[in-house]
Amino acid sequence: MSIQKMISEHPQVGGDFNESLAQAVKHAMYCAAICNSCADACSAEEMDMRQCIRTCLDCSDVCEATYRVATRRTGENRQLLRTVLATCIHACEICEAECARHDNPHCRRCARMCRECAEDCRTALETLNDEVHADH
Amino acid sequence: MSIQKMISEHPQVGGDFNESLAQAVKHAMYCAAICNSCADACSAEEMDMRQCIRTCLDCSDVCEATYRVATRRTGENRQLLRTVLATCIHACEICEAECARHDNPHCRRCARMCRECAEDCRTALETLNDEVHADH
Amino acid sequence: MSIQKMISEHPQVGGDFNESLAQAVKHAMYCAAICNSCADACSAEEMDMRQCIRTCLDCSDVCEATYRVATRRTGENRQLLRTVLATCIHACEICEAECARHDNPHCRRCARMCRECAEDCRTALETLNDEVHADH
Amino acid sequence: MSIQKMISEHPQVGGDFNESLAQAVKHAMYCAAICNSCADACSAEEMDMRQCIRTCLDCSDVCEATYRVATRRTGENRQLLRTVLATCIHACEICEAECARHDNPHCRRCARMCRECAEDCRTALETLNDEVHADH
Repeated sequence: MSIQKMISEHPQVGGDFNESLAQAVKHAMYCAAICNSCADACSAEEMDMRQCIRTCLDCSDVCEATYRVATRRTGENRQLLRTVLATCIHACEICEAECARHDNPHCRRCARMCRECAEDCRTALETLNDEVHADH
Repeated sequence: MSIQKMISEHPQVGGDFNESLAQAVKHAMYCAAICNSCADACSAEEMDMRQCIRTCLDCSDVCEATYRVATRRTGENRQLLRTVLATCIHACEICEAECARHDNPHCRRCARMCRECAEDCRTALETLNDEVHADH
Repeated sequence: MSIQKMISEHPQVGGDFNESLAQAVKHAMYCAAICNSCADACSAEEMDMRQCIRTCLDCSDVCEATYRVATRRTGENRQLLRTVLATCIHACEICEAECARHDNPHCRRCARMCRECAEDCRTALETLNDEVHADH
Repeated sequence: MSIQKMISEHPQVGGDFNESLAQAVKHAMYCAAICNSCADACSAEEMDMRQCIRTCLDCSDVCEATYRVATRRTGENRQLLRTVLATCIHACEICEAECARHDNPHCRRCARMCRECAEDCRTALETLNDEVHADH
């Protein structure tokens, strides 16, 4: 199954397909899952991981709202989309910084995922800003 | 069941209970439910409600992430909490404006709920900013 | 804001308002929030609460899906609604049993909420079964 | 990013990695996204798609709860996991049947995704039942 195809075949997308946004949707979806799993794995560790559990659950919630909002292409909600992408970047940066402090496979993977997701959201945000400028 | 009590009895809240934040949590939770219901009711209307379905679903997703992040009091995530509350205000303002255009009971209720939720998030945001200033 | 009113004014509910189902929706929404908060509070406790964190997060996810599905009244999905209510009862029973083992305010509240939610879902399930029998 | 790796490296999974369950997690995650997108695309169609919007949103909610519960491996919640997988199969079957009635790319993709997800959940359910028998 391809998230790109899912979006490109949407009746209101058509020629207006934004590859960067599709990539951000895909990685925010993965990041929501990876963070949810990392929070659970953190609770199984012996050391005190409570701050990491929290940042992971927060990031999972934000990523999920992000990918769901960014997936909807019916109607217009571009201003909110920008705000949501910026919020997702913030959540991912915080979670990456926290996970980077812990030397275990799930936190390393989660930090990597958060970094990728933040980068993709940043790129998507730039293309949306460019589109706005092109409108004028 | 009381959302206020739920938060005030959290082991890391204690004397630091923020009544405004508790109110924002409660109303964001209700707003997520009301918007989810309004989107469904909109799809049952005869006229074209697609823009309203979209803004309601987007607002529901953002409100839910907001109340979940704002409920967690273990560890520190105050910066993200501020970003999330601001995003929630944005989503609620957009949804209120869209629902206010439609004259039916579910859209009227949803517009009212969004307005209240945005106000509560604004008040909570101010108390968080005050606390930061008080720290210095 | 009233969840009962939200449902009763839905364009496809009208005279067919099911008070028991509305009560189950409301309590599943609260239970999702209380379990989410209890998981976070559990992670702040000194003793090993990992099993309780897990059952709370699982129960929160199931309650949320339940209240959202049960809120939608457009179209027909009564069979799924029954399956979902039964699943919610199961999740609440497991979470109540786990939380009842821990003597702290958030687990006591969460256990109570899960018990109430399970009872309401059971009652709602019975009314749905009665309606099916009445159809024949 | 690999969902399989995410689960296999969990501190409480280790040698006990269930490939079928990992596949069900991955496809339930994708199915939640595809159904969420299909509901939005359906609202943009000219014909009356309200029943399809509803079954897609319901299925999205159930798939999401499913993949999140099935991802957690800390502690034990195997009984609930079985109930949740069975519920997911039910939701996917209903959504597949509804989407199969509509001849457009997003409904065709969604029907296919739901069928795959239901199959994977069925396989995962069998391996879990086998493990229970093997315990005795």
